[in-house]
Amino acid sequence: MQMTELIAKKRHGEPLSADEISFLIKGLGDASVTDAQMGAFLETLAFKDSTDLTELTDFTMGLAYSGGVYDLSAIQGIKVDKHATGGLGDKTSLVLLPLVASLGIPVAKLSQRSFNHSGGTLDKLESIPGFRVNLTPDEFVQAVKEIGLAIAAPVDELAPAEQKLRRLRHETDTMAIPSLVACSTLSQNIATGADAVILDIKTGSGHDLLNEEQAEQLAHLMVNVGNEVGRRTLAVVSDMSQPLGHAIGNGVEVVEAIATLKNGGPTDLRKLVLELGTHMAQLGGYGANAEDTRAALIGNLATGKALAKFRDLIVSQGGDPDVIDHPEKLTASAYTNDVRASSSGYVSTIDVDQMGHAIQTLNAGRKNAEQKLDLAAGIVLRKKIGDSVEAGEVLATVYSSDADSVAAQEEVRGAIELGEMRKDTKLIHQVVAE
Amino acid sequence: MQMTELIAKKRHGEPLSADEISFLIKGLGDASVTDAQMGAFLETLAFKDSTDLTELTDFTMGLAYSGGVYDLSAIQGIKVDKHATGGLGDKTSLVLLPLVASLGIPVAKLSQRSFNHSGGTLDKLESIPGFRVNLTPDEFVQAVKEIGLAIAAPVDELAPAEQKLRRLRHETDTMAIPSLVACSTLSQNIATGADAVILDIKTGSGHDLLNEEQAEQLAHLMVNVGNEVGRRTLAVVSDMSQPLGHAIGNGVEVVEAIATLKNGGPTDLRKLVLELGTHMAQLGGYGANAEDTRAALIGNLATGKALAKFRDLIVSQGGDPDVIDHPEKLTASAYTNDVRASSSGYVSTIDVDQMGHAIQTLNAGRKNAEQKLDLAAGIVLRKKIGDSVEAGEVLATVYSSDADSVAAQEEVRGAIELGEMRKDTKLIHQVVAE
Repeated sequence: MQMTELIAKKRHGEPLSADEISFLIKGLGDASVTDAQMGAFLETLAFKDSTDLTELTDFTMGLAYSGGVYDLSAIQGIKVDKHATGGLGDKTSLVLLPLVASLGIPVAKLSQRSFNHSGGTLDKLESIPGFRVNLTPDEFVQAVKEIGLAIAAPVDELAPAEQKLRRLRHETDTMAIPSLVACSTLSQNIATGADAVILDIKTGSGHDLLNEEQAEQLAHLMVNVGNEVGRRTLAVVSDMSQPLGHAIGNGVEVVEAIATLKNGGPTDLRKLVLELGTHMAQLGGYGANAEDTRAALIGNLATGKALAKFRDLIVSQGGDPDVIDHPEKLTASAYTNDVRASSSGYVSTIDVDQMGHAIQTLNAGRKNAEQKLDLAAGIVLRKKIGDSVEAGEVLATVYSSDADSVAAQEEVRGAIELGEMRKDTKLIHQVVAE
Repeated sequence: MQMTELIAKKRHGEPLSADEISFLIKGLGDASVTDAQMGAFLETLAFKDSTDLTELTDFTMGLAYSGGVYDLSAIQGIKVDKHATGGLGDKTSLVLLPLVASLGIPVAKLSQRSFNHSGGTLDKLESIPGFRVNLTPDEFVQAVKEIGLAIAAPVDELAPAEQKLRRLRHETDTMAIPSLVACSTLSQNIATGADAVILDIKTGSGHDLLNEEQAEQLAHLMVNVGNEVGRRTLAVVSDMSQPLGHAIGNGVEVVEAIATLKNGGPTDLRKLVLELGTHMAQLGGYGANAEDTRAALIGNLATGKALAKFRDLIVSQGGDPDVIDHPEKLTASAYTNDVRASSSGYVSTIDVDQMGHAIQTLNAGRKNAEQKLDLAAGIVLRKKIGDSVEAGEVLATVYSSDADSVAAQEEVRGAIELGEMRKDTKLIHQVVAE
């Protein structure tokens, strides 16, 4: 078997056989398939993507078992993993995971380093002084046993073929290809020991975002593949036509997550957390109907139980819990500059790609995997789509390690457009359960 | 500028700007563009190839000047380079170059190592004991000055971006993409100091072969790009629906080339040599019309002048000229096995891909760049398309270092099909001069 033959096959849109998938996965691992060949293979999918369930199932399992997998059998209960396709300002996990754990459902979350515009969950947690995301598998399991919640980076040995594939996808602008999103994501979920999976699939008009129809198709594809490989899978299609919540960055997002855990925070973030939380708790065996489950979640936000679980998490992983009472510490090192409206109207567009680019300019999001982020830098939107704006009002505040952040301010200004008509947005587009 | 943006652009079939081409070429050289990115870039062309003359001219010149170039100004006259797109059994250069040189036209040929099924011109010459293809630039120019002919491998520094690109194309099954063939080939011609270029573009039905329409399009494209970059360029579209001549391999092809230089050899090879030779001599400034030029070439085959020039070449580059009188030496180390027809009829098909695969099985052609070939191994066809065959007659003889070459014999048998009707073939499909 030669990789050139497999490339030619995919060029014609033909599915690969189980043997061919094995050859490919092995080749990813031992470099007998070259990077150039993988680049060509990935690019064929940009033109002719696969929807072949057998091929995608084989590929998912091949990636998942390309190295060590986490054994979570020592933890009682149904372990539900949560994954979102890339979004800007998406701090959902920081609120959702403690909230669900506060219902007594074990939450063992292994999160990948993000290649996206904004930092990932791990970067955000690392903005908390002392917080350790690099736990050994034993420490990880032990933490879940003790407090019912852990969020950590997977060890390097986990699904190495998937990790390499993701790096190559990032290099080759193939992050948004549906079959690759499906196989890559689900293989991670499987390798990290998940029994069930809840997916948050973002839809919007940014470069790496799917339109509504594509997102719906991906949701069905992933639910099908997930169920096929024996993991109960449910997908929510949610809106990313603008950043989620107000804060974009790392420290600033933790501040917003804490506010939300204190029963405040932005409406859209809270709404998404409750939607995902209800499904996640039910998948995790919480024995109540959707309405009662949602009520229990709302209750735990109101009574501070969710916040207490977040505090437990910080302490458990060596972080300074004082940030809960003094979240302003997280961004204290940053200079702030306001971006103001030059005219009046309603916010009609917040360009996710441009805003993401501004985040990279601020060094709050990665251009490459090795980059060390400025965790106090970021953007806080003061207006979102549909909000009315008077000329001179603050549209957004830029947090930066430079006193002068002119380039990023310009990008933020360019990303926000005003119109004459008030525009409505819809947060939850669809729930796909089978 | 980021390579992901260029990939996205090519995915939509947009031409790259001069700056983007420079970025790409620089990235090929210093690895700031990764192999995976180059693989994805190449694959976009498999779906949306470029015919944009400005883009292709920029790309050709960028590749040509990505490193050192040969300075042939010390050699008087118009230096004409000859290049053929990959073909099986194509020993044309071995006959053509001494023949044209025998008219007094300087022939300075730098030939690339072949990645194709069969060996390249260099491999074939190396089957002559002692023959040195690795000449320094000074030795190369000196040889042309002394005997009017040199055939050598380019130094590593020559057009390194093109050399790397070709390796990656080989890896990614993108050898046959017209724009890449055009830019890669012409950039070599330019880097090796050619003033004019004659192209032999093969057409047939093999995996890396273009059909007649595609070959014609490529011929026009290359002639356009070649003339645009100031090199008079002429292309002949010739037939590769079956191997050229009878011999396929290395030593066996030299045997056939010597026979042709002795005024014998297969009809199709002689015909192609005279066609290409006439154009090449005229491009090289031979001041006669086509008919007289052809007559002069025929004369030099008949009088032995062409053969004498080949002898000069061998001596000049350290080879043993005794092979001219005793060509059987070149394959003396090989065992021979005949493949016989099991039924009667006319040869209707000689599958170039399968035959090429048999050549690889015999280790007479490369699967990868590092492979050391068995230069005495190969195949000699006893029948070609249109020939009548009686059951039991020899179809081909397999030359092998194994007494027993069953696998290759089976492949040869499978590659040759018989039919009931006599089929005609056409050798020269077209001559494209502008």
